Amino acid sequence: MKNNNKINKINNDSNDNNDNAINRLIVIQNHLSPGSIDLARERENPGFDVQKMKWLFNGGKEMFEALEEAYKIIQRDPELYIPGGHPFDMTLKEQRELVMKQILRYQKTRQALKNDPLLCRALELTMCTYSEAFWMRVYVHDTLFCQAFEMFGTKEQYDKWIDDILNWRIIGCFAMTELAHSSFLRGLETTATYDKTTEEFIINSPTLESTKIWIGMAGQTATHTVALCQTIIDNINYGINWFVVPLRDVQTGKPLPGIIVGDLGSKYGRHGLDNGWIQFCHKRVPREYMLMKWSKVTFEGVFIPSPNPALSYITLIGERFYVLYGAQSALGQALTIACRYGCIRRQGVNNEQIMDYQSHYVNLMPGVASVYVINVLYRVIVNQWNQATKLAQTNQSEFLKKINDFHAISSGLKATLTWWGSEVLERVRRSMGGHAYSAYNAIGPAIADWGVTTTGAGDNFVLLQQTVKYLLDTFKNIVIQGEEGKGKKIGSSVVYLNDFQKYMKITQCNLSNENQLYDLDFTLDIFTWLVIHKLNEAQATSSLWNDNQMSLIKLAELHTWRLALYEYNQELKNLSKSNYNNSNINNTNNDNNNNEEYQKLLPIFYKMGQLWSIHLIHTNLHLFLEIDDGGDDSNNYYFNKNQIKMIKNIYLKMCKETRKIVIPLVDAWGFPDFVLKAPFGRYDGDIYAAYFNTIKAAPNCFGVPNYWNDYIKPFTNPY
Amino acid sequence: MKNNNKINKINNDSNDNNDNAINRLIVIQNHLSPGSIDLARERENPGFDVQKMKWLFNGGKEMFEALEEAYKIIQRDPELYIPGGHPFDMTLKEQRELVMKQILRYQKTRQALKNDPLLCRALELTMCTYSEAFWMRVYVHDTLFCQAFEMFGTKEQYDKWIDDILNWRIIGCFAMTELAHSSFLRGLETTATYDKTTEEFIINSPTLESTKIWIGMAGQTATHTVALCQTIIDNINYGINWFVVPLRDVQTGKPLPGIIVGDLGSKYGRHGLDNGWIQFCHKRVPREYMLMKWSKVTFEGVFIPSPNPALSYITLIGERFYVLYGAQSALGQALTIACRYGCIRRQGVNNEQIMDYQSHYVNLMPGVASVYVINVLYRVIVNQWNQATKLAQTNQSEFLKKINDFHAISSGLKATLTWWGSEVLERVRRSMGGHAYSAYNAIGPAIADWGVTTTGAGDNFVLLQQTVKYLLDTFKNIVIQGEEGKGKKIGSSVVYLNDFQKYMKITQCNLSNENQLYDLDFTLDIFTWLVIHKLNEAQATSSLWNDNQMSLIKLAELHTWRLALYEYNQELKNLSKSNYNNSNINNTNNDNNNNEEYQKLLPIFYKMGQLWSIHLIHTNLHLFLEIDDGGDDSNNYYFNKNQIKMIKNIYLKMCKETRKIVIPLVDAWGFPDFVLKAPFGRYDGDIYAAYFNTIKAAPNCFGVPNYWNDYIKPFTNPY
Repeated sequence: MKNNNKINKINNDSNDNNDNAINRLIVIQNHLSPGSIDLARERENPGFDVQKMKWLFNGGKEMFEALEEAYKIIQRDPELYIPGGHPFDMTLKEQRELVMKQILRYQKTRQALKNDPLLCRALELTMCTYSEAFWMRVYVHDTLFCQAFEMFGTKEQYDKWIDDILNWRIIGCFAMTELAHSSFLRGLETTATYDKTTEEFIINSPTLESTKIWIGMAGQTATHTVALCQTIIDNINYGINWFVVPLRDVQTGKPLPGIIVGDLGSKYGRHGLDNGWIQFCHKRVPREYMLMKWSKVTFEGVFIPSPNPALSYITLIGERFYVLYGAQSALGQALTIACRYGCIRRQGVNNEQIMDYQSHYVNLMPGVASVYVINVLYRVIVNQWNQATKLAQTNQSEFLKKINDFHAISSGLKATLTWWGSEVLERVRRSMGGHAYSAYNAIGPAIADWGVTTTGAGDNFVLLQQTVKYLLDTFKNIVIQGEEGKGKKIGSSVVYLNDFQKYMKITQCNLSNENQLYDLDFTLDIFTWLVIHKLNEAQATSSLWNDNQMSLIKLAELHTWRLALYEYNQELKNLSKSNYNNSNINNTNNDNNNNEEYQKLLPIFYKMGQLWSIHLIHTNLHLFLEIDDGGDDSNNYYFNKNQIKMIKNIYLKMCKETRKIVIPLVDAWGFPDFVLKAPFGRYDGDIYAAYFNTIKAAPNCFGVPNYWNDYIKPFTNPY
Repeated sequence: MKNNNKINKINNDSNDNNDNAINRLIVIQNHLSPGSIDLARERENPGFDVQKMKWLFNGGKEMFEALEEAYKIIQRDPELYIPGGHPFDMTLKEQRELVMKQILRYQKTRQALKNDPLLCRALELTMCTYSEAFWMRVYVHDTLFCQAFEMFGTKEQYDKWIDDILNWRIIGCFAMTELAHSSFLRGLETTATYDKTTEEFIINSPTLESTKIWIGMAGQTATHTVALCQTIIDNINYGINWFVVPLRDVQTGKPLPGIIVGDLGSKYGRHGLDNGWIQFCHKRVPREYMLMKWSKVTFEGVFIPSPNPALSYITLIGERFYVLYGAQSALGQALTIACRYGCIRRQGVNNEQIMDYQSHYVNLMPGVASVYVINVLYRVIVNQWNQATKLAQTNQSEFLKKINDFHAISSGLKATLTWWGSEVLERVRRSMGGHAYSAYNAIGPAIADWGVTTTGAGDNFVLLQQTVKYLLDTFKNIVIQGEEGKGKKIGSSVVYLNDFQKYMKITQCNLSNENQLYDLDFTLDIFTWLVIHKLNEAQATSSLWNDNQMSLIKLAELHTWRLALYEYNQELKNLSKSNYNNSNINNTNNDNNNNEEYQKLLPIFYKMGQLWSIHLIHTNLHLFLEIDDGGDDSNNYYFNKNQIKMIKNIYLKMCKETRKIVIPLVDAWGFPDFVLKAPFGRYDGDIYAAYFNTIKAAPNCFGVPNYWNDYIKPFTNPY
């Protein structure tokens, strides 16, 4: 009831000054908390239409309204809603159970809503936003497992399995990593040995180190897995392929003979996800359980290789783009909480809002800007990927050409965004003082949940090396071998290498007025200069790969952030043109009425892009200064001291400017209070009472502890 | 049994090559795991005496042997040892209970050992190293609560309470922070109103926001608290003072009338510590319950103020130095685990040890060096502080003069070290890939436990502002007002300001050969140049405090690290002289036989100091380049490009060099396996089997989950 009121309130946001004056009077009249008055004042002059931004940010008016409906469904349904409002007092066992309960209810709800696909999609998105562990568990089956059949299965295989998969009559997991092997897939030890006599593969874990581990849903849930194994025929190893392996009896849940499977137990975070491990003991599966879209094994045992070895990890390319949506959700929620708290919390001699301290807003505002950048980037990149995968059906060779580029992009984005995500979440935690150490303000659990993204699904260091290897190889082709401009098609992420010579000729930045730094083309140009010069350094030393690894990894990061700036910049240009309907961030075509209104939001997107660009330049300032052109004057620096001053100055200035509208900026993401779960993130600002109620509702808040007589009384009553 | 064997093994470390050759043969003979062979090889040529380093690192041979005995006691005693070896499967409730069980057993054990004070002290240190939550809980009573009586109580008050405190007949906590007030103590709302008629103070929490919160041991344990309250007499507020307030009935554990107290519930970490909250409802205490060493209130209600307001937070100065010991323990344990794992884990085409990847050793080696620096620094600073506090008894005015300096030092060290600690722990986590996400490898819990140190006991941002304020004030006195060299005594941490003019005259670094960077005096000089120039920038703009807050905070960090380098450097000089017995890091005088042996370890300490120095310079490289001298040539940079190259080069080189002895370096800290708790940190290198055994021993590893029939079977058996 309370929260429904809140949603209505959110809908009533308005930048109409009269309304706000009246609202303010009502606030005071009702003797609301000081926090409520603070947030009301922060909302007085957003300078943009928050409601319209909510629509645009969330994929259009129609989509946003569907999301609101979906949130209402979750909040009302006792099997979707987390009992008590949060999972922070639940044991690991209870959280594992809760999430499966939610999944069952969610699937039934979707079946009931099947005639409303928009609402179904909205329910999926909102549940994933509501619960990280729910998301991961559904994702393992619906995405990783299911896509394995799409990407690696023949049409016959796909048709055979897909109905059971879509209806969860079998529940799947994705077994790649082994106890002692992860990033280097060719080193995996699990074997699938072909037995001609029975036309079966024998799946086997030859050593302890080959135990499949960290497999989501293997712990308690999955009835089947796809497993990456070395394919052995007549004692010859033909390399890794995917095999379907049944794990548990679908009636009883008991592991099948030949399968030893267990739960991984306690983790840093994501307690609702049952990560597990699997050992195969001579488990036999029919030959057709090898997924044979690319590589094949005939019944006689002849191996037909894949046209492109990269195809065996193709599922992971698309998967990695989800990290953008995940970042938007995790960072968006944490920043909503921290920014609202920062505008309510007061401290110091003049009882200032702590958000007005420079150390506060400079730490948080780049994070806020990044959420807007990620929001746009996610939609742009996913659209590009979707268009590419359509080619897989119609023009395989064209699709295969694009794979390397997408692999490099997705690896780079996954690594840079997950590192940035960890940094933002930690900044958020520190910005909230001791109160973020309470589990009930949701930040600690968010840090722990997010943690695995930096090491799981490809270690970031390894991924960035793959990105930089692609970059250097392309560089060699088009610059050193001089194939640029000869019509050779290169991946879209590296097109800027065609301008290599142009950037190499520039030795000093032409920044003369700090206002130039508001120009996204100008800052993109500065950043591109850095990437090109780092690349030039790298290619000279890349034969000493390991001795330059740190530098190469940094180059991959810079290359990726440059791409993000470029795509964001391009998309804003699309948005500003009349052909807005063709832009990526408009997901629906039913929103024509709002086109003009949306274009009024452009200045906000520009502000966010400006802050993000200057943040990137400021953060990497030392790299600009370290670049060694090897020219005659070895003391020629790209930036002179005056320019450095301008950059530092504008950076602080942009943080300060955007701080003024921080509450409207985070409100516009549209996370309802019950999703945030943190009393300190409440929309209405009445934070202390809500927090205190949460504490008092926790188990064992009051009362004498059960161990008083055993372990305390012997002290206090020693005689 | 197993673990006892391990300790014997540790004692048998030797750099005798014959022994090692034999050991190696035995290793191979016994078909030990590949990890065991890897670690044995890493231990072959340490280049220093690991056993002697263990002694020196841990306070001398005698102390180290006492620590080993104490570890044995813990491991054997079923009430001190954590059942199952780790707390990572326990609920919050179980962990709270476990720690109190340990405390009772620990106190009884100490009583039994009272004739062996060295072993008692060793038991205290080892238990604190073994369990963070144990440490915190004991620390709240033994240090915070107890010291309040020492620091703020009159002799009569001290004598009245101390016996009950030392014997835990009352159990105390330390109530400072309030729900809406923390760093700005003058803003606290809790009142102590004097009632002349009864000669009592009425302790009251006037608002929800004034609830005392985050109070360690208040949740379930404490029978008493000291509380910081506004002192009100005849409607006049005389400011904050400390009051003793009984909380719970010592017989029954029930809260007393006028006290509402509860547990704070779930937190990010430290589940064994019962943080709580307290509301006072007109609770009356006798006038003598105000601690009156400095401020006093007579029975007629006359307020006699304290000679120095800083005295009211004096407990916190000494407290903050514990963070150094805490950092040594937390970082040391995490790095031991990560470095051993890094030398066993193999990945890549050539199956390299991942520790040989540049991205790996460059991330970890500065952390290893920092543990050695912190170890020395801790002992130096604590010795200085202990000498100062002795003055409190004999020469109060001299003591008061030193307080500001120590306050600035302790604030700076607390902030910089806790931030660095978080960074190291996160680096460690990421270096271990997915396996550090398992709670059983102890890194996730360590990150969560450590987290509160960055915000608790004084927010780092606020503390660094206090440090920089002291620095700027001193600067104003001795440089701007020209009082340097006139014999005015200034705090030891700021003596270098006397050389302000000397450093201001230097505009370019005189680095011409990269070997100069191995000279600790030389690198200290470079770093001092940076601090002086940042200070010069800061003083020019310090009137705009908030607009330069980020820069001022950075200055405080640099100033603090400079101090650390200086003190470390000085101490190595002491150690290298014949007057070694006067050095700070020799805690015992019974170790004369080992003096010469210890001096042979000096090269290792120098190596660690060199790496740490170059790490600091490298990390802050951009700051050197940003410094604006305001001279005619605004493009004069302190480092030229060639010098930058040398710094980057030497940094990577030192990381690579020290990586070669990384296992001996971490072995020398002497953490036993059962304290590390992480299978991946095992001394013997047999990590995978141990890890897998831990997983299999966890609750609910095997078996059909309890929710199969309710939430999974409806999917897999839909008809």
